[in-house]
Amino acid sequence: MHFTSSSGRSGLLVALDWGTSSLRAYLLADGGRIVDRRAESWGILQLPDRDFGAALERITSDWSREHGALQALASGMIGSAQGWVEAAYVDLPAGVAALARGLAPVPDTRLRIVPGVAQRGDFPDVMRGEETQLVGALTSAPDLADAVVVLPGTHSKWVRLAAGLVSGFTTFMTGELFAVLRTHSILGRLAPAGAVDASDPDGFERGVLAAQRSSVGLSSLLFSARASVLVGDLPAGSSLEYLSGLLIGDELRAGLSTEGRPAALIGDPALCARYRVALELLGISAVRILDDTAPAGIWAIAEHASIISQREPGSSRNPVSGRSN
Amino acid sequence: MHFTSSSGRSGLLVALDWGTSSLRAYLLADGGRIVDRRAESWGILQLPDRDFGAALERITSDWSREHGALQALASGMIGSAQGWVEAAYVDLPAGVAALARGLAPVPDTRLRIVPGVAQRGDFPDVMRGEETQLVGALTSAPDLADAVVVLPGTHSKWVRLAAGLVSGFTTFMTGELFAVLRTHSILGRLAPAGAVDASDPDGFERGVLAAQRSSVGLSSLLFSARASVLVGDLPAGSSLEYLSGLLIGDELRAGLSTEGRPAALIGDPALCARYRVALELLGISAVRILDDTAPAGIWAIAEHASIISQREPGSSRNPVSGRSN
Repeated sequence: MHFTSSSGRSGLLVALDWGTSSLRAYLLADGGRIVDRRAESWGILQLPDRDFGAALERITSDWSREHGALQALASGMIGSAQGWVEAAYVDLPAGVAALARGLAPVPDTRLRIVPGVAQRGDFPDVMRGEETQLVGALTSAPDLADAVVVLPGTHSKWVRLAAGLVSGFTTFMTGELFAVLRTHSILGRLAPAGAVDASDPDGFERGVLAAQRSSVGLSSLLFSARASVLVGDLPAGSSLEYLSGLLIGDELRAGLSTEGRPAALIGDPALCARYRVALELLGISAVRILDDTAPAGIWAIAEHASIISQREPGSSRNPVSGRSN
Repeated sequence: MHFTSSSGRSGLLVALDWGTSSLRAYLLADGGRIVDRRAESWGILQLPDRDFGAALERITSDWSREHGALQALASGMIGSAQGWVEAAYVDLPAGVAALARGLAPVPDTRLRIVPGVAQRGDFPDVMRGEETQLVGALTSAPDLADAVVVLPGTHSKWVRLAAGLVSGFTTFMTGELFAVLRTHSILGRLAPAGAVDASDPDGFERGVLAAQRSSVGLSSLLFSARASVLVGDLPAGSSLEYLSGLLIGDELRAGLSTEGRPAALIGDPALCARYRVALELLGISAVRILDDTAPAGIWAIAEHASIISQREPGSSRNPVSGRSN
């Protein structure tokens, strides 16, 4: 174990946002500043030989050539049972301190993995990766410490924060449902071949509003995308935008009624913008968008775990690189 | 057009239940009695060359050798835009008379196709094939003329009948969602490989009851199948039964609240039995199951269209072959 030997020396940290479909690596310095970054499609399901060590070595090779061996911290599905080393879930309420205590070291490496968070009880739920994005968001937006925050994505999360801790959350399969239905269901076959990616704000808005109006639930709503085309109410070329609107609209309907109004959206800017359009259709405006907060979260967890030296007293530099608008 | 020339002669009719994935053919005689039957996997999406004529000729070749050219009537997706000849939807309220008026002849053949039914307005919906099963069900169970009937399947239908006419309906994508999520989503990867088909009544029941208890909607419910396994609440081998329970339970929750209590289930006996178990968990018992009602429906529509001779006066023979339990 070389954790402390090199950390003080360089003051540098490798932060890895390592999910199912991609690996993003950041070289962080003083206060979490991003010195350099790399991205590869080496998600844990994209490495058929599961040679995580080789992937890590390769994505950080430039940095270790220049700076020598560096401490590294990873968040995301790399800590799942299908990942490199399983980092056991931390229970609610969970914040930076519990995450730092729960770090799982990967044997014979300088890498530790941030645990996910589990909600137990009648409605079990889990997250991996979002907990780190939330820690990062709080470093630049401390007013979110007592708020509802939405992280849109493959498995969209609605998170209740209380005193800076994750106190409860709900997952919606919005992104995965859209991808799977578009590619493999009858709903994806409605759109004419060349029109699949056409952006049609009207189709999207109609879907959001249909999801608000209906009381019959998603399984029936989804079929309305097909029926509306067949009876001539919706152009076939708008059906995917309508489907996207139905799924996001249904998520907003359910999330707003169970978790309440979100103060911020965290994630891919284009996807967050789509959620903001949908929220505005429902009369909810001025929701902030935060992007790329994982590196700041990893830096904060590393500080708590004393893997890198704490910020100097008096330093007021904002360690977050993500843009906020 | 040879429609009338041969009909009176033989008193025989070829009935085709021609859907997306399969083609079922019946040779019907006096009163709708099934004389012979054939089934092939020649659904409209399974015939890459779209040579519907060759498929029809081949599946009826034994019968035409013995009886000469026969009149034929088909119901199902064969009448859709992706089928052989499009049979325009009939509007609500729709019954046997409107379906007989809407038959679409296939040029240069003895085949006519039963139209589907469209619901227009705020919640457009469509059916193709179920309208014929309903007509068939009414011949053996006339008490269903004013009732709610459920037809479970790929696209499950909840149908309100009034005075023997379809007066409104709601489709749920239950069957397709199960198939797509099982094969292509993260939910299908939970179950250990040999356990995919294991029947686990407990997993199914837990899914049905979870769908009843939750107010957050299907998109979030679905993720609970994964989260419950990850936190140790559900054995991985039960996750597909749980998923099936969630989807059917969510359909029942929505259907019961918007359409009301069903008097009968029509369709595949094993699938209907699964719905009956779920209904019983919710305290709804003694729901009948009707099977294989399409041939009786086709016979009744053919009678209305005077394609085959009307039943002799005084004949009280039950023309339905489907078993009822």
